[in-house]
Amino acid sequence: MTDSSTHLLSHLLIVLVETSHPGNIGSTARAMKNMGLKRLALVAPREFPHEEATALAAGADDVLAEARVFDTLDDAIAPCHLVFGTTARPRHNEAPSLTPRDAAAMVLREAYLGLNVALVFGTERTGLTNAELDRCRHAVRIPANPEFSSLNLAQAVQVLTYELRLASLELVEPDLPSEPRDLASAGDFEGFMGHLERTLGLIDFYKGREYTRLLQRFRRLYQRAALDRQEVQLLRGMLAEAERAARIAAATRNPPGSV
Amino acid sequence: MTDSSTHLLSHLLIVLVETSHPGNIGSTARAMKNMGLKRLALVAPREFPHEEATALAAGADDVLAEARVFDTLDDAIAPCHLVFGTTARPRHNEAPSLTPRDAAAMVLREAYLGLNVALVFGTERTGLTNAELDRCRHAVRIPANPEFSSLNLAQAVQVLTYELRLASLELVEPDLPSEPRDLASAGDFEGFMGHLERTLGLIDFYKGREYTRLLQRFRRLYQRAALDRQEVQLLRGMLAEAERAARIAAATRNPPGSV
Repeated sequence: MTDSSTHLLSHLLIVLVETSHPGNIGSTARAMKNMGLKRLALVAPREFPHEEATALAAGADDVLAEARVFDTLDDAIAPCHLVFGTTARPRHNEAPSLTPRDAAAMVLREAYLGLNVALVFGTERTGLTNAELDRCRHAVRIPANPEFSSLNLAQAVQVLTYELRLASLELVEPDLPSEPRDLASAGDFEGFMGHLERTLGLIDFYKGREYTRLLQRFRRLYQRAALDRQEVQLLRGMLAEAERAARIAAATRNPPGSV
Repeated sequence: MTDSSTHLLSHLLIVLVETSHPGNIGSTARAMKNMGLKRLALVAPREFPHEEATALAAGADDVLAEARVFDTLDDAIAPCHLVFGTTARPRHNEAPSLTPRDAAAMVLREAYLGLNVALVFGTERTGLTNAELDRCRHAVRIPANPEFSSLNLAQAVQVLTYELRLASLELVEPDLPSEPRDLASAGDFEGFMGHLERTLGLIDFYKGREYTRLLQRFRRLYQRAALDRQEVQLLRGMLAEAERAARIAAATRNPPGSV
């Protein structure tokens, strides 16, 4: 993650409205910090600060310490240019809601342009009121099980902040290749297959069967494993020991000098 | 959401290993049900059932009531064909981890083909052990703030199940392989790994070396190969012959009656 995307995330504002359980404020702080967010605003929380908030923040104390408390939603979002409200259910008269993914892309784009952006979450029991949602430019809805659609408040924050983090990674950073593996070359691989073929003969695996197809099956499974060079050595080490045992066993059946 | 994608989600298994706080089990059940999942397995939970689990399930009582409790992870995942383990940090020696999004797409594709798929989550404090992660074909890592990367357990479940739900919604006609494979179950796989360990001992592959890491490397490459049942039989056939040769060889060095 680059400095600039870290910077964007740390400027986004999460607003919790009239939260009943201080534990949810703590869990929200933790979820935010996990995803690289810092700025929390609390509108008329029932109890804050509170030991349960601190306990559930689990180390995100800095987010709690810097949280600002407001009397009204309007006060909390006054300096913001763009406000997203979250909702668990489709509302009457509501503008079509965005998915978290689309909303996150939009948030990051606007933040990148230097706008102040806020995401607002309502109370545990009823979410945002229609009047509160009206304060928001866009509604965001997490696609949930229609028969059980109400997420815990901090879980909803987690999903949204997770999407914000992904969007920030996609915004700035090109797709990074995963760490390159030291893959075996085709030559290494064929060397191994030849070794396997000889060893299987020595340990009498074929027992007179037509073995092209058997070898084919081994080939397929090892191809699928995309072996690296160390793994080829490991497997060949195993074959060498099996061969050694087979030679000793064969010498027993046909001791030197026998006919 | 179609009936068939609902059906797929309801068959996925979430496994929590040695959960300390019953509240996290309840929050997990709620997160699962919010996203349309139903099947929960608990490996040696510290306390379960427990009133705090029920309280935090907030109506997902059915998920808790049907949760199955196991003594070991191996027991819990024995019937599964494909197991994903979650991890908060990159591990030494770990296969490259998947993002939740890529993992979810893979899970849904495999579930669509009729495979049993499990997602495994470790303890609150330390996550999955390396030995537990070794039981998993793939590791999944939530891209988090590197300076504060440990999500609450139920939050991690929320992120993963959210991605599973999105993947199920996007699933229209997955890229089907020409023919579904008869993949080995985790139980079959462990049977093979036990056989390999014994055979390597018999053919004197270890030569007094500390062999846990050696086995680890074999395990990783065979996990990556996603073995089907016939391949497990093929490999065990090879092991059986190597063993036979090794026994004859050993008898040569210590013929019956020698001291």
